[in-house]
Amino acid sequence: MRDIDEFTITTAVKQMTGPKADPRLREIMDSLVSHLHDFAREVKLTEAEWFQAVQFLTQVGQICDDKRQEFILLSDTLGLSTLVTAQNNRKPKGCTEATVFGPFYVEGSPLYNHGDDISNGAKGTPCFVTGTVKGLDGKPVAGAELAVWQSDDEGFYDVQRPEVHEHQARGRLRTRDDGSFEFRSILAVPYPIPHDGPVGKMLDALDRHPWRPAHLHFMITAPGYERLITHIFNETSDYLESDAVFGVRSTLVVDWNRHEPGVAPNGTAMTEPYYTVSYDFVLNPEA
Amino acid sequence: MRDIDEFTITTAVKQMTGPKADPRLREIMDSLVSHLHDFAREVKLTEAEWFQAVQFLTQVGQICDDKRQEFILLSDTLGLSTLVTAQNNRKPKGCTEATVFGPFYVEGSPLYNHGDDISNGAKGTPCFVTGTVKGLDGKPVAGAELAVWQSDDEGFYDVQRPEVHEHQARGRLRTRDDGSFEFRSILAVPYPIPHDGPVGKMLDALDRHPWRPAHLHFMITAPGYERLITHIFNETSDYLESDAVFGVRSTLVVDWNRHEPGVAPNGTAMTEPYYTVSYDFVLNPEA
Ligand SMILES: [Fe+2]
Ligand SMILES: [Fe+2]
Repeated sequence: MRDIDEFTITTAVKQMTGPKADPRLREIMDSLVSHLHDFAREVKLTEAEWFQAVQFLTQVGQICDDKRQEFILLSDTLGLSTLVTAQNNRKPKGCTEATVFGPFYVEGSPLYNHGDDISNGAKGTPCFVTGTVKGLDGKPVAGAELAVWQSDDEGFYDVQRPEVHEHQARGRLRTRDDGSFEFRSILAVPYPIPHDGPVGKMLDALDRHPWRPAHLHFMITAPGYERLITHIFNETSDYLESDAVFGVRSTLVVDWNRHEPGVAPNGTAMTEPYYTVSYDFVLNPEA
Repeated sequence: MRDIDEFTITTAVKQMTGPKADPRLREIMDSLVSHLHDFAREVKLTEAEWFQAVQFLTQVGQICDDKRQEFILLSDTLGLSTLVTAQNNRKPKGCTEATVFGPFYVEGSPLYNHGDDISNGAKGTPCFVTGTVKGLDGKPVAGAELAVWQSDDEGFYDVQRPEVHEHQARGRLRTRDDGSFEFRSILAVPYPIPHDGPVGKMLDALDRHPWRPAHLHFMITAPGYERLITHIFNETSDYLESDAVFGVRSTLVVDWNRHEPGVAPNGTAMTEPYYTVSYDFVLNPEA
């Protein structure tokens, strides 16, 4: 402890952890310290670079508020969110794949009836969404709670619009007895993740764009099944090959069909073009 | 990019960096992403643990202000500051060793004359500090700027006391022609690093204490020499073997001599006990 250098410091830090520390915390922190130190030694981090990192992380923390979580954005853009999601959601073949949660989910969105328009004033081309929720055994899951959220046609979620004080383009439904669901919303479009803060500056410096391909978020929960957090993506969207947060999975990319004005599948007379999209989700039974 | 899992994500993130990124930034971020991902895979970080980390880092950022830098504390307590200091300040044998900067340095502290009392009202047992600044060739360094800062007898720096609006127990001197300096201050005592925030909670959870052994900070600059940022430590202090920020170096630990009331070395009549300490600094010539 009296003669520490850039190599012996790693063991010194680990040895400081006391006997009463939680074993899992010790395991995590020992690994974190080893990898953090290996990184700093590998690139021979300078004092100026270290200070730049301190300032960057401080800015990331300071821009966070009750509606903005810049550390999640940082984790998303560095692929950590996808890594953690993937290693904690390995599912048997045949189950719908999980993908990143993202920062725009809101608890307690309105509970809708099948066929309702969940856009609730959000602007965009109408889109009718249908599908089913089934178990891996093929049996329909009745009464599953399906939470859905998406951006409007300018790429903003309701929580990103200071003038919007209600839930728009988000809501919850409970699947019917046959596992089916249907609702009306708007066409999802590509959008840039919030890039007016430190993470946006980082992407700029890395010569990376902040865009995500068009997608619709789902969180599906049902007793006896693992919770599924995922998106569905539009096959024709830009950025499917360069999602800023690494969320695309080929099994989640589907056709969104454009229709001329006429009668929509649910009987609504449409005076403007509209889209339909359908997806059948398969849940993994709880172990 | 459409079929990423917890292993392929690492390459996918690195490949996203564009051609216009600064090569050094690319090198740093590639290494950071590799080590961050290795860490998350090694401990099989869960989603709940990931979210706890997001919340922790957010709290670290949010408690920072113009007088508090919790990310530096985090870096200090995880040994990263010592690592970066060490690998950027390798000096030839015979030079005074560098140690961590810490968060309490303040630009533009008062310039004092030799013999002045820099405590400026900070409470503590009087302590007379003397020494010299020389180059590695043994020649005195005249006119070196020596900045010194320390805590008061309750372990607080002036900037930690909201009621103190001037510089206390910190100041600058310029070495005399023979490289010598002398000033009066107060006895340094052990103190805990600020532990009322997230870093304090982390230390608690790791069953670690927040204390640092008694020390006096120095930053010495002189044309033609590398800047030296270091401390001197009190040989009799507690926590020399368990400095919360890993700053102790055996060559920086010295005797602080206690004296009964009487005439101090500089002729001051002392009616209370006082201390003396002396240190000869050796600077590394610039390459
Ligand atoms: Fe999204
Ligand atoms: Fe200090």
